[in-house]
Amino acid sequence: MAAITAAERYAAVRTQTEALCRPLLPEDTVVQPIIDVSPPKWHLAHTTWFFETFLLKEHLPGYRVYHPQYAYLFNSYYNSLGSRVNRADRGTISRPPLADVYAYRAYVDEHMQQLLAPYRAVADAPFAEVLELGLQHEQQHQELLVTDIKYILSTNPLAPSYWGEQNVVVPTTAAAPAPAWLQVPGGLSTIGYQPETGDPSGFCFDNELGAHTVYVEPFQVQNRLVTNAEYLQFVEAGGYADFRYWLGEGWDLVQQQGWQAPLYWVQQPDGSWHRFTHHGLQPLDPAAPVTHISFYEADAYAHWAGARLPTEQEWEVAARHFAPEGMAGQFLESNRFDPAPVPASADPTQCHQLLGDCWEWTYSAYHPYPGYQKAPGALGEYNGKFMINQMVLRGGSCATPLSHIRLSYRNFFHPDKRWQYTGIRLVK
Amino acid sequence: MAAITAAERYAAVRTQTEALCRPLLPEDTVVQPIIDVSPPKWHLAHTTWFFETFLLKEHLPGYRVYHPQYAYLFNSYYNSLGSRVNRADRGTISRPPLADVYAYRAYVDEHMQQLLAPYRAVADAPFAEVLELGLQHEQQHQELLVTDIKYILSTNPLAPSYWGEQNVVVPTTAAAPAPAWLQVPGGLSTIGYQPETGDPSGFCFDNELGAHTVYVEPFQVQNRLVTNAEYLQFVEAGGYADFRYWLGEGWDLVQQQGWQAPLYWVQQPDGSWHRFTHHGLQPLDPAAPVTHISFYEADAYAHWAGARLPTEQEWEVAARHFAPEGMAGQFLESNRFDPAPVPASADPTQCHQLLGDCWEWTYSAYHPYPGYQKAPGALGEYNGKFMINQMVLRGGSCATPLSHIRLSYRNFFHPDKRWQYTGIRLVK
Amino acid sequence: MAAITAAERYAAVRTQTEALCRPLLPEDTVVQPIIDVSPPKWHLAHTTWFFETFLLKEHLPGYRVYHPQYAYLFNSYYNSLGSRVNRADRGTISRPPLADVYAYRAYVDEHMQQLLAPYRAVADAPFAEVLELGLQHEQQHQELLVTDIKYILSTNPLAPSYWGEQNVVVPTTAAAPAPAWLQVPGGLSTIGYQPETGDPSGFCFDNELGAHTVYVEPFQVQNRLVTNAEYLQFVEAGGYADFRYWLGEGWDLVQQQGWQAPLYWVQQPDGSWHRFTHHGLQPLDPAAPVTHISFYEADAYAHWAGARLPTEQEWEVAARHFAPEGMAGQFLESNRFDPAPVPASADPTQCHQLLGDCWEWTYSAYHPYPGYQKAPGALGEYNGKFMINQMVLRGGSCATPLSHIRLSYRNFFHPDKRWQYTGIRLVK
Amino acid sequence: MAAITAAERYAAVRTQTEALCRPLLPEDTVVQPIIDVSPPKWHLAHTTWFFETFLLKEHLPGYRVYHPQYAYLFNSYYNSLGSRVNRADRGTISRPPLADVYAYRAYVDEHMQQLLAPYRAVADAPFAEVLELGLQHEQQHQELLVTDIKYILSTNPLAPSYWGEQNVVVPTTAAAPAPAWLQVPGGLSTIGYQPETGDPSGFCFDNELGAHTVYVEPFQVQNRLVTNAEYLQFVEAGGYADFRYWLGEGWDLVQQQGWQAPLYWVQQPDGSWHRFTHHGLQPLDPAAPVTHISFYEADAYAHWAGARLPTEQEWEVAARHFAPEGMAGQFLESNRFDPAPVPASADPTQCHQLLGDCWEWTYSAYHPYPGYQKAPGALGEYNGKFMINQMVLRGGSCATPLSHIRLSYRNFFHPDKRWQYTGIRLVK
Repeated sequence: MAAITAAERYAAVRTQTEALCRPLLPEDTVVQPIIDVSPPKWHLAHTTWFFETFLLKEHLPGYRVYHPQYAYLFNSYYNSLGSRVNRADRGTISRPPLADVYAYRAYVDEHMQQLLAPYRAVADAPFAEVLELGLQHEQQHQELLVTDIKYILSTNPLAPSYWGEQNVVVPTTAAAPAPAWLQVPGGLSTIGYQPETGDPSGFCFDNELGAHTVYVEPFQVQNRLVTNAEYLQFVEAGGYADFRYWLGEGWDLVQQQGWQAPLYWVQQPDGSWHRFTHHGLQPLDPAAPVTHISFYEADAYAHWAGARLPTEQEWEVAARHFAPEGMAGQFLESNRFDPAPVPASADPTQCHQLLGDCWEWTYSAYHPYPGYQKAPGALGEYNGKFMINQMVLRGGSCATPLSHIRLSYRNFFHPDKRWQYTGIRLVK
Repeated sequence: MAAITAAERYAAVRTQTEALCRPLLPEDTVVQPIIDVSPPKWHLAHTTWFFETFLLKEHLPGYRVYHPQYAYLFNSYYNSLGSRVNRADRGTISRPPLADVYAYRAYVDEHMQQLLAPYRAVADAPFAEVLELGLQHEQQHQELLVTDIKYILSTNPLAPSYWGEQNVVVPTTAAAPAPAWLQVPGGLSTIGYQPETGDPSGFCFDNELGAHTVYVEPFQVQNRLVTNAEYLQFVEAGGYADFRYWLGEGWDLVQQQGWQAPLYWVQQPDGSWHRFTHHGLQPLDPAAPVTHISFYEADAYAHWAGARLPTEQEWEVAARHFAPEGMAGQFLESNRFDPAPVPASADPTQCHQLLGDCWEWTYSAYHPYPGYQKAPGALGEYNGKFMINQMVLRGGSCATPLSHIRLSYRNFFHPDKRWQYTGIRLVK
Repeated sequence: MAAITAAERYAAVRTQTEALCRPLLPEDTVVQPIIDVSPPKWHLAHTTWFFETFLLKEHLPGYRVYHPQYAYLFNSYYNSLGSRVNRADRGTISRPPLADVYAYRAYVDEHMQQLLAPYRAVADAPFAEVLELGLQHEQQHQELLVTDIKYILSTNPLAPSYWGEQNVVVPTTAAAPAPAWLQVPGGLSTIGYQPETGDPSGFCFDNELGAHTVYVEPFQVQNRLVTNAEYLQFVEAGGYADFRYWLGEGWDLVQQQGWQAPLYWVQQPDGSWHRFTHHGLQPLDPAAPVTHISFYEADAYAHWAGARLPTEQEWEVAARHFAPEGMAGQFLESNRFDPAPVPASADPTQCHQLLGDCWEWTYSAYHPYPGYQKAPGALGEYNGKFMINQMVLRGGSCATPLSHIRLSYRNFFHPDKRWQYTGIRLVK
Repeated sequence: MAAITAAERYAAVRTQTEALCRPLLPEDTVVQPIIDVSPPKWHLAHTTWFFETFLLKEHLPGYRVYHPQYAYLFNSYYNSLGSRVNRADRGTISRPPLADVYAYRAYVDEHMQQLLAPYRAVADAPFAEVLELGLQHEQQHQELLVTDIKYILSTNPLAPSYWGEQNVVVPTTAAAPAPAWLQVPGGLSTIGYQPETGDPSGFCFDNELGAHTVYVEPFQVQNRLVTNAEYLQFVEAGGYADFRYWLGEGWDLVQQQGWQAPLYWVQQPDGSWHRFTHHGLQPLDPAAPVTHISFYEADAYAHWAGARLPTEQEWEVAARHFAPEGMAGQFLESNRFDPAPVPASADPTQCHQLLGDCWEWTYSAYHPYPGYQKAPGALGEYNGKFMINQMVLRGGSCATPLSHIRLSYRNFFHPDKRWQYTGIRLVK
């Protein structure tokens, strides 16, 4: 990244976001089928509002806000910055139309280019920290765009393809190799963001700061993610009908929601399983990692399989132990939006898919690291206020930009969420 | 209407619907801010599906359905015709996009023209009854389009104008004349659809059939609708804070919803009252009829004013008594979408605004007339199954096509609904 | 009734209420399984509060209120009289215990005896109207006690008997005779309270006042209520699985609530039908009227049977036509709390069960009669504020005191309610 | 405890439960004002059902179950043991009455005495483990009885005293000494149940097993709990109106529920603060620990005070460090049901109130310890299935039996719960 200027870096991130929305029709960009999923138009505008609010208003002399009400429309959750559209109502707002949101983006981009022109690199800017945060923030929304678009299209009875093609059949793969258990030594380790030990320098979120010592017992980790074929055995063995595998609140959900398989899985009249993808309905790929499962399903599967989920400490200790091989997964840049199957030839002595493909549920609640400090002002609301009732996920997914992920990255969702690319890594 | 062919009549109705949607952007046609309000795109498609289902599939040999899943998407409530998208989820469906819905309309229109070509008039077709029902049905959805679009734009913080103009101020009018009380003689009368006594011939809904004798006591009716100026007195006298004027369930609603004025009324920081219109926010017009009120508000106002609402029998008896003057109101064709103010010169011996301007809440539940029979088959679900928990409204509104309304017309809504053009006619 | 003094009349009504609660344990008198059902202890106290508030405080000089907070606890719905326990929370209040409520009753009774001592009859008291209202009010709560106690015991998995006995089997009866259709002449009639034409003099509720002329077409009425045997045919013919018989909101309820038969009906493993009674679970009595059905079920049954429900005008016209035979039913005083089967010998030229046995759903919404006036003050909240979204029932039930019912009596419940003794009278 | 026989031990625990219920009226034992609070009658029966199910049915030859439906009524959450009354409906069940539940207790006690007669001590019984679990389980319900009874009486507008007295004023105390910060050394420690290091032997729950090594950084702990006086400063400084102190989900709750102070705090018209206690409303005791606060309030207070909550690892490390002084608090046996004020003379070098008085919220989610194993069969549902979305509390309270608590004890509640005796220990 050293060779690109601040302006180039900014342009590259912004362009990527728009590329993701290009296959969409204006109608697709407005709807919000569930509260978790925001309309793509909202993502396009909200990320723009972030730069306008935290950079242009603060640092570009004479900057005039594009529209006085956009702050009301496109503020996500910053109480410090005033009232806003209820999150559940984002799908009821038809105006500004998509074209106006692109105009908003162009206006902000133009002024950002003006602001960034003097700097050879992001790090050279006096507001480098906030600029970097804005770029990382937009990358987070790129991932959300991929998963939210998938959800929006999935609820449509026409099961449209994001890519626009018709009747394409995505090839499935030969069976995955049996998983191997790899030993991870116990003892004292350091987790959290540590640029000196190989973490990409220049940025991490505040929730990763405070690298600290942890003690873990020796344990074994499976060298790849759980596959669709393996998970299907759990489904077919009646896993969704036996309370013994489930946490109590998970079992209540299974019954209330009628869950019988991961999100997007559909059993055809002939008994075969398909799943909804960005290419519409496709046959299940047995060698690919199972994804779109809640923490409850991950945990129930682990019980059924006689194993367990790692803590986030264990995950990071293992990941740092096996790191070099960890980078071989699928990321946003692969432009496939599907976790990659494990090749049959995968080396059983290596730990695969640690980064990319699927976020890995850990059995750790999302709590502050020792010494955690919220940023002052509105940006203090970025991470800290969510540190309750959510579980940590690690490793990124096939919708995460490669430049955005690292071993210390802490993602977090409530344990019932399924619309992200979530998967299972077993330990014992 | 005698002079136009079946095909011309069909084309005229269909064109009117599309004209109403012309000012909208694709994004506006997708959203559903509350369950009562359907996305305009859905209206466009649903009315088309009606012709396809009940006419083309039945009567045009060799007709091929445009898309096999459109019946699932665009069936409103006909259990006889299979499962469908939940009413509350109409706003989550982005595809087919607006352009495809227009293509669907064009396809069906083309085949309808083919089907209708032989007939000099609607009445000549062997399927005249269903054809007429389809046209009247589309006219009902024209009114819903006007009111649904108004609601959709009203929830948008940008308060956009349907007409697309900016900063227009709609002129208000001089004060309305004081209302006069007109005497209606009691005794036996006939209500219900009676073509022989001047009702437009050729069509009525099944719920108007069974003209029958009713006995009413003599009563007095106010010669115009209650105005904004009059209703404002009720608001300012604390009408929304005094339970004594309200039905129990109405009072609960006032408190739960925080109602303080009619829907769309907004008090400005300077204390003046504005209301949301198709031209955005506009000052209250004191001489215009109050509208967008629930039955509960109409009834509470009547109590406060020392009067009451008419029964539907009284309304029709009065309307037939004063009928000729009744037709002077505002209709869909006026293209204004706002109830018209009463001119200061209005004749106090006439009964004004009986038809058009605002639907008038009656204190009659929507129940079957004596001898009511549901149609056989799916069309039996058109009216009969709604005959519970709704109140009858009479007289049409500024969003009702003139050719669609008549003295025997029975509209019906739940007593809490406010997004239609509803108003108050007092009797005593 | 002429021969009894005001004090005797008061004592008789009050004693009857306590007799109804005598078989209950303190624990039974506290619970509220659904919002419609009030704890018996609350009924005992609320009726007492009514006399204290409207009579003793107003008319007995020097009267001291028994407890300053009982008005908060035992006011039902009178906004005029201040705030109160939420209706839904009546079952969370354990104190005052039952014994204290009886002490409250004794205290109020003692003062009421003092107040009433001078008067030879209720009518002689200067506050006769409110006194009579208090007594009728308490009789209304006697009926509610019977139905609420039944509901409370029914939700208990132990299915206890109100009477305290065990393993009693209530005998069922021979089949009822086939129903006959009796002709009712049409034309002008007067409905509403008319003491001069035989209505018991001295009392009616304000909602019956305003006797007025109505016009009805000639019609036929069935000479007895629909029986369990007849309703069972509807059940077994799949009536609960066919939307065509149902109003839309009724059909939604059937599906949401999983209704498959009237409330309290239970199908045994051997396929036979039982129902919960004050004697616990008992076999269905084929000749007895079906009861504990909603308006929706009554209407659906009528459709299935090729008939319809009467309007309240028709009901009263028919009842006045056949009145003398109408009085042969079962009332509270029969002390059976079950509608009586129709004897096989019942005279087919008479109209049976018009009064007593079951409240008969009419297809009339509960609206004000012409000229209806609310009483001034708090008692104006007694009836008028409920005149929306409820349906009129006529004729009283096996839980109605005989001295409380008359031909003009208008009871009212929401169309989904089933815990009262509601039944079906067909007309055509 | 060595000197008492199994039968004596059993009798002592059972007697204690009944003593707690002795001041209650039958009516008090039936109601369930919120889902968290079970009716006392249910607690009495459920604990009995536990012994019947897990001991008598298994180990007493020829034992006949007291009533075939009690398992349905009094099973709490064991899916393994079949269907049961919904938790939310426990307050709708009036029968069996309290007297029958006492008879059930007597019947089971008699058979338990028979079963236990041969054993000199609990540990001698072949079923010692389950017996001990049953006794500990009943002690847990003793604490719930104290807190549930308090809640039940608190929702009653009569604000009754559990002790039955009237107009008693509980004396408050002189101000507490300023808190001191005590240093806790960091490094490796062992947490979890370790009988060899002084934990009372003989019993712990499965969730404490798996003593394991943890690493903590050095930290400081406050030497007493936060007092009412300190918390009142937070209240009066506007702590409940400033989102910056709150976790996002906590802030939502504050607004939805209108929280302005801890549960049971009531501001009098003169501005002074009272709180509901087992003696009814009493003035706030400034030196006593604040209690009945949610995790969200504890965390917000800590932010406001510039400190934080401990993790459960830190809490146990600190507690083991300071243990001997930890035992000086208030327990169930103190029979006061109120946390004890800190004496002004409290030694600032000691760590007070570690055990007893208030459960201390930790910032640790309730998750399994390394190597956690659920018990086989129904008892496997005792603890494990709750290990999600709940926070660990440590140290016991004034309602915890002294013989029931220990340093490794892990209690757990959702972060919004306030009806337990919960308090705040600050660290930094």
